[in-house]
Amino acid sequence: MTTTIIETLETIDDLDLLISADSTSAYAHDRAVWAAYDVPVAVVRPRTTEQVRAVVAACIEHHTPVVTRGAGTGLSGGANATADAVVVSLEEMDQVLEVDVEHRLARVQPGLVNDNFRAALVEHDLWYPPDPASSPWSTIGGNVATNAGGMCCVKYGVTGDYVRELEVVTGTAEVVRLGRRTAKGVAGYDLRGLMVGSEGTLGIVTEVVVKLRPLPPEPTTVIGNFDSLEDAGRAVALIGASGVAPSLLELVDRGCLEAVDAWRNMGLASEADAVLIARSDAPGASGEQEVAELLRCFEEAGATYTAASTDAQESEALYAARQLAFPAMERLGVVLTEDICVPLSRVPDVLGQLRAIGDRHDVKLATIAHEGDGNLHPLLVTPPGDEAAGLRAQAAFDEIIQVALEAGGTVTGEHGIGLLKRDGLGRELSPAVARMHHAVKAALDPHGIFNPGKALPI
Amino acid sequence: MTTTIIETLETIDDLDLLISADSTSAYAHDRAVWAAYDVPVAVVRPRTTEQVRAVVAACIEHHTPVVTRGAGTGLSGGANATADAVVVSLEEMDQVLEVDVEHRLARVQPGLVNDNFRAALVEHDLWYPPDPASSPWSTIGGNVATNAGGMCCVKYGVTGDYVRELEVVTGTAEVVRLGRRTAKGVAGYDLRGLMVGSEGTLGIVTEVVVKLRPLPPEPTTVIGNFDSLEDAGRAVALIGASGVAPSLLELVDRGCLEAVDAWRNMGLASEADAVLIARSDAPGASGEQEVAELLRCFEEAGATYTAASTDAQESEALYAARQLAFPAMERLGVVLTEDICVPLSRVPDVLGQLRAIGDRHDVKLATIAHEGDGNLHPLLVTPPGDEAAGLRAQAAFDEIIQVALEAGGTVTGEHGIGLLKRDGLGRELSPAVARMHHAVKAALDPHGIFNPGKALPI
Repeated sequence: MTTTIIETLETIDDLDLLISADSTSAYAHDRAVWAAYDVPVAVVRPRTTEQVRAVVAACIEHHTPVVTRGAGTGLSGGANATADAVVVSLEEMDQVLEVDVEHRLARVQPGLVNDNFRAALVEHDLWYPPDPASSPWSTIGGNVATNAGGMCCVKYGVTGDYVRELEVVTGTAEVVRLGRRTAKGVAGYDLRGLMVGSEGTLGIVTEVVVKLRPLPPEPTTVIGNFDSLEDAGRAVALIGASGVAPSLLELVDRGCLEAVDAWRNMGLASEADAVLIARSDAPGASGEQEVAELLRCFEEAGATYTAASTDAQESEALYAARQLAFPAMERLGVVLTEDICVPLSRVPDVLGQLRAIGDRHDVKLATIAHEGDGNLHPLLVTPPGDEAAGLRAQAAFDEIIQVALEAGGTVTGEHGIGLLKRDGLGRELSPAVARMHHAVKAALDPHGIFNPGKALPI
Repeated sequence: MTTTIIETLETIDDLDLLISADSTSAYAHDRAVWAAYDVPVAVVRPRTTEQVRAVVAACIEHHTPVVTRGAGTGLSGGANATADAVVVSLEEMDQVLEVDVEHRLARVQPGLVNDNFRAALVEHDLWYPPDPASSPWSTIGGNVATNAGGMCCVKYGVTGDYVRELEVVTGTAEVVRLGRRTAKGVAGYDLRGLMVGSEGTLGIVTEVVVKLRPLPPEPTTVIGNFDSLEDAGRAVALIGASGVAPSLLELVDRGCLEAVDAWRNMGLASEADAVLIARSDAPGASGEQEVAELLRCFEEAGATYTAASTDAQESEALYAARQLAFPAMERLGVVLTEDICVPLSRVPDVLGQLRAIGDRHDVKLATIAHEGDGNLHPLLVTPPGDEAAGLRAQAAFDEIIQVALEAGGTVTGEHGIGLLKRDGLGRELSPAVARMHHAVKAALDPHGIFNPGKALPI
């Protein structure tokens, strides 16, 4: 008599195993709209690396797919389950294991929530920069899996720039350490870097060593209202040419401003077609110089209004339009968040094309953008339950991907491929590069158990 | 009748092909001392990507190893040839193909010499930071192959931090582009990063797109003399804690100072057991503040003498001890350059152990160090032709690797594995990680033609 995967999982010492549909259905999907999912055969919530290893060994034995997840805040369906899969939720592995103040390193478990990590570092005057908008909920492991970006990466880089070393359970159920703790090192292939952004398809990360920075000074916020996307784009180009390094450079377009107005009556949309929000966190005199320079760039580009904060409270107030944009859009219906990245010079033109796509497909489309990186998030909103509108939004989504590629950009700047962008990835990569991806996948996941059907070109 | 590899190479249109031992023997090895090499069966000097592709196809057909080389300045034997190999020298592919000032990107050929690239960027007020000591001779392609570091990486990062996109001829003789030009992007695995530092074992890089920075201001140089390695180490720790970001932080130890004195009679060694040299390239007032802070850290750590430059000429003068250290050692005999990287807190102890190793093996050993990164270059000097001393130096070399590993460090910080460090790499990686390396190698180089016998654990 052969055993089942569940019977084998039950033999793992002290493993938190969920098998009733009541409890497993909560782990069926992430926050991707329209991506396929199903209730998994089981959910495990390991507390140790050894438990993870034993789960992987069991799944190899039973040819069972493994879907690893953190908080489930992903936007591409990368953590969506299938009916035959075991979901490995790392939520119980959420500890800060070590803060090495002298070398500015921390060793953490993958289920640690990003904001909780930052909060734990404040007492050491240390800072972990990567700040995806999901930071109140998303986990370091999930951030590693998608190589998450955020607001401050325009100055400070993305998740992968901070990962020094990973502990990983491999496709052969072995526990390995990839990368190293030293500041430099070129011994062997960069398998650490290969694992970052691989969306659970090459292994399960069970520990992360990241480098940290000193806490920066409180930032000053600078805003500018612009009558056109072109003027805002010119402001960004001027900032680029000036050599100033803003710690944040975001755009909120008219569609979002209207949604915020509809909610909070702030009168934003009547004053601007787009608002740019920049921050400087440089200390003392150089900070003042940067703020002056940012204001000069805004004004030279034709801003109709500019302002700079003088204290922390005002800084937050000036930031409100950006912060409220997403929830304001969510009030209007189901939001499908796009995520493309294009060369900076193409941003105004692409933003214009996005508006045209929304109009053409009769879908409410408004954009927030990490403008300093050329990373645009068009938000497509459809009325709940309106299937026809949903189909129109999906058509718009596909067209946006094509616009990104034609502009010399990429189909995902920071959200990952998951399920929603596999077709787009296939359009972005040449067939030869797609084959290289599958060859690497087969080499490191020889049993094909890790997140099959995700993240790779079809 | 079967054709030979040379006959097939001869069919490639307009290919510069060398087959006489007179000309091919110049391509037999790089600058690694004691690493095995032989005269290759042929040397090709392609001028186009298509020629490189055709050469790779020919080598696949004939099961012929391919050894790719830039300028041959490598220090680990990575470009050393074997008797059955074809050497692909990229020296003729040395052009700057594009400087995109607006996006601060450049597209270059792999044979471009690092310093020539920097010189070409000055007119655009742009800068390519990675600055290995070999920059007057070494090529961008070679720098990519080893993920080269240098002086300024303590502030600005290493080669891989600047590579956005690569054109590569693959192990299946296909031309692919890996990575992308946009500031962000997470579409697919980071095969670009996997290629960086892979020492010619996964493909041949035929084009490199790098990001650039604005030219920084002229730096100010600060030096400090210290009576002990511990005092110098304390100064580095104080700088780290201060939050100052020096653009260079080098140590020259007594052995090197003595060698410089023996050559130039500068009286350095009588005044210091170690000299620290730091630079700040921050602009204006923040630069002045950084220089004051660097001097304070030196003094607080017990420096017996400190000085800061006031102009460019003085800055170079203060830098002389560092610049002369390597040629001064070369005057004394054959130099074997080690390259380890350890956690910063371990640097003084490790430097002390290095001295003891030199004494124990009766080998002249002196160290220059990228101290701010914990990247140490012990230089082992033996009299030319003295075989016994050579063996003693090799024993010391092995012991240094062990010291690095025991200190939680790595066997190579920036020079690569090549031939000289394969045993060390095997000691650094666990067997499971070594197997992952070989699996990736087999996946991307299915015919096993790229630099066989190099860079991977035995």
